[in-house]
Amino acid sequence: MSTLTFFERLSKTFHDHRSHLKLVLLCSAVSGGGILAYGELAPSEAAVTDKKKVVVLGTGWAATSFMKNLNNPRYEVQVVSPRNYFAFTPLLPSVTCGTVEARSIVEPVRNIFRKKKVNVQFNEAECYKIDAENKKIYCRSKGNNNLNGKEEYEVDYDYLIIGVGATVNTFNTPGVVENCHFLKEVEDAQKIRRTVIDCFERANLPDISEEEKKRILHFAIVGGGPTGVEFAAALHDFVKDDLARLYPGIKDLVKITLLEAGGHLLSMFDKRITAFAEDKFQREGIDVKTGSMVVKVSEKEISTKDLKNGGEIKTIPYGMAVWSTGIGTRPFIRDFLSQIGQASRRAVATDEWLRVEGCNNVYALGDCATINQRKVMEDIAAIFKKADKSSSGTLTVKEFQEAMHDICERYPQVELYLKSKQMRNIADLLSEAKGDVKKEPIELNIEELKTALSKVDSQMKFLPATAQVASQQGIYLAKCFNRMEECEKNPEGPLRFRGEGRHRFKPFRYKHLGQFAPLGGEQTAAQLPGDWVSIGHSSQWLWYSVYASKQVSWRTRALVVTDWSRRFIFGRDSSRI
Amino acid sequence: MSTLTFFERLSKTFHDHRSHLKLVLLCSAVSGGGILAYGELAPSEAAVTDKKKVVVLGTGWAATSFMKNLNNPRYEVQVVSPRNYFAFTPLLPSVTCGTVEARSIVEPVRNIFRKKKVNVQFNEAECYKIDAENKKIYCRSKGNNNLNGKEEYEVDYDYLIIGVGATVNTFNTPGVVENCHFLKEVEDAQKIRRTVIDCFERANLPDISEEEKKRILHFAIVGGGPTGVEFAAALHDFVKDDLARLYPGIKDLVKITLLEAGGHLLSMFDKRITAFAEDKFQREGIDVKTGSMVVKVSEKEISTKDLKNGGEIKTIPYGMAVWSTGIGTRPFIRDFLSQIGQASRRAVATDEWLRVEGCNNVYALGDCATINQRKVMEDIAAIFKKADKSSSGTLTVKEFQEAMHDICERYPQVELYLKSKQMRNIADLLSEAKGDVKKEPIELNIEELKTALSKVDSQMKFLPATAQVASQQGIYLAKCFNRMEECEKNPEGPLRFRGEGRHRFKPFRYKHLGQFAPLGGEQTAAQLPGDWVSIGHSSQWLWYSVYASKQVSWRTRALVVTDWSRRFIFGRDSSRI
Repeated sequence: MSTLTFFERLSKTFHDHRSHLKLVLLCSAVSGGGILAYGELAPSEAAVTDKKKVVVLGTGWAATSFMKNLNNPRYEVQVVSPRNYFAFTPLLPSVTCGTVEARSIVEPVRNIFRKKKVNVQFNEAECYKIDAENKKIYCRSKGNNNLNGKEEYEVDYDYLIIGVGATVNTFNTPGVVENCHFLKEVEDAQKIRRTVIDCFERANLPDISEEEKKRILHFAIVGGGPTGVEFAAALHDFVKDDLARLYPGIKDLVKITLLEAGGHLLSMFDKRITAFAEDKFQREGIDVKTGSMVVKVSEKEISTKDLKNGGEIKTIPYGMAVWSTGIGTRPFIRDFLSQIGQASRRAVATDEWLRVEGCNNVYALGDCATINQRKVMEDIAAIFKKADKSSSGTLTVKEFQEAMHDICERYPQVELYLKSKQMRNIADLLSEAKGDVKKEPIELNIEELKTALSKVDSQMKFLPATAQVASQQGIYLAKCFNRMEECEKNPEGPLRFRGEGRHRFKPFRYKHLGQFAPLGGEQTAAQLPGDWVSIGHSSQWLWYSVYASKQVSWRTRALVVTDWSRRFIFGRDSSRI
Repeated sequence: MSTLTFFERLSKTFHDHRSHLKLVLLCSAVSGGGILAYGELAPSEAAVTDKKKVVVLGTGWAATSFMKNLNNPRYEVQVVSPRNYFAFTPLLPSVTCGTVEARSIVEPVRNIFRKKKVNVQFNEAECYKIDAENKKIYCRSKGNNNLNGKEEYEVDYDYLIIGVGATVNTFNTPGVVENCHFLKEVEDAQKIRRTVIDCFERANLPDISEEEKKRILHFAIVGGGPTGVEFAAALHDFVKDDLARLYPGIKDLVKITLLEAGGHLLSMFDKRITAFAEDKFQREGIDVKTGSMVVKVSEKEISTKDLKNGGEIKTIPYGMAVWSTGIGTRPFIRDFLSQIGQASRRAVATDEWLRVEGCNNVYALGDCATINQRKVMEDIAAIFKKADKSSSGTLTVKEFQEAMHDICERYPQVELYLKSKQMRNIADLLSEAKGDVKKEPIELNIEELKTALSKVDSQMKFLPATAQVASQQGIYLAKCFNRMEECEKNPEGPLRFRGEGRHRFKPFRYKHLGQFAPLGGEQTAAQLPGDWVSIGHSSQWLWYSVYASKQVSWRTRALVVTDWSRRFIFGRDSSRI
């Protein structure tokens, strides 16, 4: 090539020294704030001979945060996913209305692991079968017109990490798959955006009756969870801020209905947030129908059963329906579940170390998995035996206190129970069981210990299927893998109550950092740890800064921030592409 | 609604006072320059009673520039197009590789005419039949899953403006429609982008032979015109700058081939540009095969006929093929052509006032139309008669000179002929015909006039099918419509040689403002009026500023400029969405 020109050199500089220059360039862009947690690793390749092969399925939150945090060169990683990018899914509702562009929330996975010292390979393919017995998976590439058919191949593994996420749960409601939109993938969001515009264009054609126009412009959203609520709010803003101006003749015919089978919207949030959201939606004319269970969706009508008034069936004509109720199981995961004796489950059951129950060296995390917490009562005899060091048949408070740290680490429900009962320490628990006698010296036999801990297991909680959980699980698992050899020698986990020695690692613990529910009109509800609730514009700005800071790369961060600025200045685009 | 907050008010201010604030905000963004020709009209609605209905077909360059410039409130306009947006097509090759995002080059047509004083309605529908006899068109809306079937309806018109553009011309080559990509619409560009990534992902799968990888990574481009050349250059940059880093194992297997049936690339450009492009492509490893006519495309192979070496047939395996050779006729235009007795034509023939020959009040412009220039020799008797005011049977130079202005206006080829022969004036032409005798006084009879003008018609030129021509035609036609009543009373066109009085308007004259051919690596060839040729980085910056300035709105201008900046800082995205 010829000598480099000034422009080429400048451009090269940017590309080659991304982290530094971009930091300078873009810090101002995200000055809104948040904790800018970003560290790119660029270590030299270490020479390791007997590498273990880790196969990762998926490129979502769980799989990507695992990959991003794995830095033990002892592994060689092969990632298999039909999607060659990571998508920042919390911004999907923003993509449906063009507040943020689809491309701004995705990052090619190859970019994420390009500079890692761990050897990572990516294949754009779909795993369609797991053979855990022979440590093998079967993959097939996506069909494509010009690339002639599907390619099938096998991959061996030493460790398998399943992070494939979930599908939509239609609860087998007839007509949902055929007629409803979903909001799980970037393509779904793009399709919704096109369909909204389609509805407006369609209703604007001549020779369409007023009634038919109303039907076409009726947007029905099924599911009053965070996704449904955020989409309803985003759509309302899009119509009010942008479309009303472009379609003045039909803007008053638009109606948005939110159908929720439960009694309230956002049931997992604080009641103050629920009430605020319901009020706000009512003021804005979004029709919130709680207690309405959708029983059938046809081409032009949704049938709902009114759970409040004796199960009356109503039909509502609609133009576009978005279905966002809970998550379902991917077909190949269902096959895998019956293979490993979990056929009755809807997600892969793992222990607290994210290891899949019933097979070796297979891990599952994110939406496709669920942690099967061990009950204290299952292990009560073993716990008693381990704690009773003197083998006297009774436990003194001192003996119990010594074992308490390990018990709490192994069975997190114990700590939660203490907290929920506002007990200061273990002695309170024991004295409650004994019937509030004099506190020292207390001795318990096994039956009394059972009584003391009998209610503890009620505190076991399933983790929500959120990006936050998946991401924390990915980081946790990567750290385990990073320290595998080290912890093999010096286990750092709690005592094995049923076996000998200690667990290699501490079990996974989820730390809830709070949750947002954007409600439209630059207002967001935020529920932060410690039941701190904030609603309004200030939390909208908190939302902006947290979402900007949580982006997977500086690139997507800058894109998202400039998208917000573009929207602020120019509004949203209504071209049908 | 509740009281407005600061943010809402600020945002509202932006929306309501777009032109002024944005001018301030964004001037710096396009400081690169160019002539920022932009004027938004915001006049008040005028009260006109007997409005004439103008139906415009299309939302491309021709139709949009017509709409944008029409400001006579005497008309009410209905625009019918399957695309509810205008696309800045010269940037389509940039969209194929993500240098610019698809959404940045489109503008909703409703935004374009929202503030006009002319009443404009838009329907997203397709015209499938024109009935010029009854002044009626037949439309149908696009089919859509959720919106239940296609809607059909009729529209009456007083004036019909056809600006529907053209399709791709496959020259009936077998397999092209099934296997090749085109580059006419925004969707085409997006599809090409996905397919390029698909090819890279596919070639990266395990168990694929080296030979197969090479096939998959062979990108064949058919047609060495500006689109084909620009796409080849853009693809080469994309591979070199971005993909090579992400797919290090297969980057050396990539091959780009440019197939051109003619003897050279960019044959409509100056020879210096052609030579530079061919040299540059050769240096960069883009295989330019001139004299190769594609005769068949199958799923994995392209068959070419070597026009240089006695018609040898070769087959080349390929992974993705892009077809960009010339333009063809839309099916409903073909029907219309047979209806109006132009069945043998490939585009709608109009006169110099863009009126379709063979029907009333129908105009055609842009790629779907061609101006049928009137030959001087056809009208020579009429011209002689009109010019010979004394009816003496001979023309004096004085008489001829008096008629000359009208002749040149009506028959632009006369002026071009004079220029091409470097003649100063009409006397030179006449004296050449007479055989260079003494110049004054010359008198010609009709036979001598025929001799004098016999070669003039050779200067008639067909206009190229470019955005520039379409746009100028749209502006021209809008100006005619704006001054329709005025010019009805005071015609301003040239003398009618065959009829009485004058033409209402001056005929359309195309003014060539130059043409760009981006060649990749921040180098562009520019051919400006007066045969001024510039190649290199300076013309790349000229290209940037002209393309920024020519955007249809401040919104797209800002988007395109920020896209360029994003690409400069972060490179192009390779996510397959």
